Amino acid sequence: MIKDASAPIGVFDSGVGGLTVAREIMRNLPSEKIVYFGDTARVPYGSKSKDTIIRFSRQITRFLIEQKVKAIVVACNTASAFALDALKSEFDIPIIGVIEAGALVAAKETRNRRIGVIGTEGTIGSRIHERFLHSIDPSLEVIGKACPLFVSLAEEGWLHDPVTTLVAARYLEELKQKDIDTLILGCTHYPLIRSTIAGVMGEGVRLVNPAYETALELKVLLGDMGLLALKAEAEDFPYRFFVSDLAEKFKAFANSILPFDIAMTQKIDIEKY
Amino acid sequence: MIKDASAPIGVFDSGVGGLTVAREIMRNLPSEKIVYFGDTARVPYGSKSKDTIIRFSRQITRFLIEQKVKAIVVACNTASAFALDALKSEFDIPIIGVIEAGALVAAKETRNRRIGVIGTEGTIGSRIHERFLHSIDPSLEVIGKACPLFVSLAEEGWLHDPVTTLVAARYLEELKQKDIDTLILGCTHYPLIRSTIAGVMGEGVRLVNPAYETALELKVLLGDMGLLALKAEAEDFPYRFFVSDLAEKFKAFANSILPFDIAMTQKIDIEKY
Repeated sequence: MIKDASAPIGVFDSGVGGLTVAREIMRNLPSEKIVYFGDTARVPYGSKSKDTIIRFSRQITRFLIEQKVKAIVVACNTASAFALDALKSEFDIPIIGVIEAGALVAAKETRNRRIGVIGTEGTIGSRIHERFLHSIDPSLEVIGKACPLFVSLAEEGWLHDPVTTLVAARYLEELKQKDIDTLILGCTHYPLIRSTIAGVMGEGVRLVNPAYETALELKVLLGDMGLLALKAEAEDFPYRFFVSDLAEKFKAFANSILPFDIAMTQKIDIEKY
Repeated sequence: MIKDASAPIGVFDSGVGGLTVAREIMRNLPSEKIVYFGDTARVPYGSKSKDTIIRFSRQITRFLIEQKVKAIVVACNTASAFALDALKSEFDIPIIGVIEAGALVAAKETRNRRIGVIGTEGTIGSRIHERFLHSIDPSLEVIGKACPLFVSLAEEGWLHDPVTTLVAARYLEELKQKDIDTLILGCTHYPLIRSTIAGVMGEGVRLVNPAYETALELKVLLGDMGLLALKAEAEDFPYRFFVSDLAEKFKAFANSILPFDIAMTQKIDIEKY
């Protein structure tokens, strides 16, 4: 473990989705350097098994530690659900996921005690939000719903589209009937179709974006450990991007999410880690 | 290379889609044994780069050769488009893909010389169908269209669904305007939503299923090489299934495609090959 406040933060995801988390870290911790890894050769994680996700996450953690990061953010809900405990027990470095921060805010915000969670099949099947919310308050009613098509629709760029609205209406019908008042966007792609989801759910439902809440949790953690970066040195670009597959899609998608162009993306062989 | 007519045929795909090809081989070559590999840990291939697909295909080919197969069918359009040439030059075993057989039939069947091709971004971006069709007849007009959402819709099981019809109408609009009379289903999942695609395209358009044509091509190849299996020995089940990730989804999906239940699916670590 590196006790160096000027070291970068490692952020990883199955692909491009975690850039919505990186973006919130950039906004809320502008002095921090970031090393981002997107597992574009093996994306998506949402439909794969726990064993496989742990193995992939372990390889990526080894890679990020080699990059001398001071902390790691698992910016993927599926990897957070399946692998966070294993990573924490195996590696001597602060590691946070995207589940807890969002769940905490949802528990705080709900008025009628009925919380919805949407995510991949892996995340929803793990029931991790439910377990965490029940550890805060066992009387909370938690309704999960897997929405596998949302990722494909977001990546297709159909963010405001009749097809996306139709799919959202189908997936979210059950959550509306259960009268939830708070909905956790439990997959990093979902903030991209937030307005469609909000339109279907209606004004009475508060949407929780765990990316934002995780950035705030990270700030507190680094502060507590005395690891918050001082003012960034102006001379060098503080963000580095690595992927396991150099698909053009990563760059195009990244450039649509981030407020600057990713010129350099480096491909590494993650299976060697 | 194994000169043994009783050896199994190796069939591989990025995941479950190639089972539509395996099914056609089972139907048309009922005496043959099959070793199937689905790369469920790294699925899908359609949005990944050529380098990565070649690397994955090479690992799988090594695994299948270790299983002592007599020939290999690349039952994935993207892997056929990107990796077939590399595999053929590197390995001493007969290897066929799913592109050529379908293209040959399309060239034979078209009356107005306008052929449509639908597939993943990788397959369509490679323009491999166009190149192959033009090597047969340079005057053919070939119109390709990537339909990335079709795979997610098929895996979601929305085979006959208003959402799938709406998405199909959007994707296929351009092909209809170009007045094609023949359409190649250039992705192994697409035969599963064949009736929706047929409904959108109308009766005047012939749909070509490369899975069926590939099984016939395989039969000819094995016959030419003196490698056709004799009558199957009744005592043992002739099909073995391997995956890189033991997701329940594979079994569920396989059992919906194949005429029998897959009880045993073995997980292997494909990254070691």
